[in-house]
Amino acid sequence: MLRFALLAFDADDTLWQNERLYVEAQAKFAGLLAHYHSQEWIRERLYQAEIRNLEHFGYGVKAFALSMIETAVELTEGRISGQDLQTLVDLAKGMLQGRIELLEGAEETLNLLKDRYSLMLLTKGDLFEQENKIARSGLAGCFRYIEIVSQKTAPVYRSLLEKHAIRLERFLMVGNSLRSDILPALEIGGFAVYIPHELTWQHEHADPPPADHPGYYQLDHIGLLPVLLEQIEAG
Amino acid sequence: MLRFALLAFDADDTLWQNERLYVEAQAKFAGLLAHYHSQEWIRERLYQAEIRNLEHFGYGVKAFALSMIETAVELTEGRISGQDLQTLVDLAKGMLQGRIELLEGAEETLNLLKDRYSLMLLTKGDLFEQENKIARSGLAGCFRYIEIVSQKTAPVYRSLLEKHAIRLERFLMVGNSLRSDILPALEIGGFAVYIPHELTWQHEHADPPPADHPGYYQLDHIGLLPVLLEQIEAG
Repeated sequence: MLRFALLAFDADDTLWQNERLYVEAQAKFAGLLAHYHSQEWIRERLYQAEIRNLEHFGYGVKAFALSMIETAVELTEGRISGQDLQTLVDLAKGMLQGRIELLEGAEETLNLLKDRYSLMLLTKGDLFEQENKIARSGLAGCFRYIEIVSQKTAPVYRSLLEKHAIRLERFLMVGNSLRSDILPALEIGGFAVYIPHELTWQHEHADPPPADHPGYYQLDHIGLLPVLLEQIEAG
Repeated sequence: MLRFALLAFDADDTLWQNERLYVEAQAKFAGLLAHYHSQEWIRERLYQAEIRNLEHFGYGVKAFALSMIETAVELTEGRISGQDLQTLVDLAKGMLQGRIELLEGAEETLNLLKDRYSLMLLTKGDLFEQENKIARSGLAGCFRYIEIVSQKTAPVYRSLLEKHAIRLERFLMVGNSLRSDILPALEIGGFAVYIPHELTWQHEHADPPPADHPGYYQLDHIGLLPVLLEQIEAG
């Protein structure tokens, strides 16, 4: 019997580029307000609005757009032009369409693993956005289960595994967020493979577990996952 | 054996008031722009923006807020003030909090039915918003399953029932939207109970099925559902 009954993959910045879209939008936003404040101050105020609005609006591009608009009103003392406002709304629309840029090796790795294991796509965020991204990614067919949740905490992981009747110690999570992917999976007694991405939203940062934490692994690249799995299964 | 293995309930305007929040917000929005255009024209342009933005933003309050902002920029030719913009964002935040007003008889009906049948809450919309509303409603404990989907079409119903291993002819859907609740449930061969709500979003309108369509029922009030179910089970 295989050790793992289920491999779950985070999506944004684990399988495809996502944070990059936000970084680009933040740069355009800061550029739009450049004659009002310094770039650093604009970015800092936007980040504060995003965090403040999480409880109202949750994650995703629409929430980000509303935070940009609030910040623009605040930082221009209400003098933001109608044209600039429309630019912000259009910026959000642009983030929600266009090609999904898969991370190198993601598609090949999923295709290699999908015949041996049950794969789950497990992502948090806006349902509408995430479904659209999954459809555009072309990867939906690799997954037996697709789960979109509003947050990724230990109780959420536990109830998902219960729903699919998977034992916790036969679960492995792969992702780029220590806070959302790695720590909660370890907390419930599962395995976790951390694959850092050069761009990870400040809010997702957390201290890593000790390197020798049982069940915790770190890889530089998703393409290395099949070999790691072979080693664990053999060990 | 009972005829129904699963009763699914729509949430917004079937179990609790929802459209009322939008109607109130639309009135405030039209009031804010009153010195630019007629109330009818403002409402019409807002509705057009909502429909146009469905493909970009999906359903829910955040999408509605962005449509209000776009419409305000358009109808004021960019002269909307920063203060009015903040009012629109705050209007959206207000819609996302506060007490959930249950429809009369909803709680009692669910409590009466939950011991006899498996109940599902089946709602479309923004995941974050719908989860918050379910939590605030106090009704979550009545349901065996809670499913939040981005759209309610016949294929979505079919795949949900497949997932839960429910035979299509043992499924009954209860809701206030002909388009999203009633027609697709009948299309897949299930039963559907239409309970009209005085406020239903224009976009959800559809022609009703013929009154003698097999499996189709209409009630004036959710409190009448238990008696209807007894009649169907007895018949």
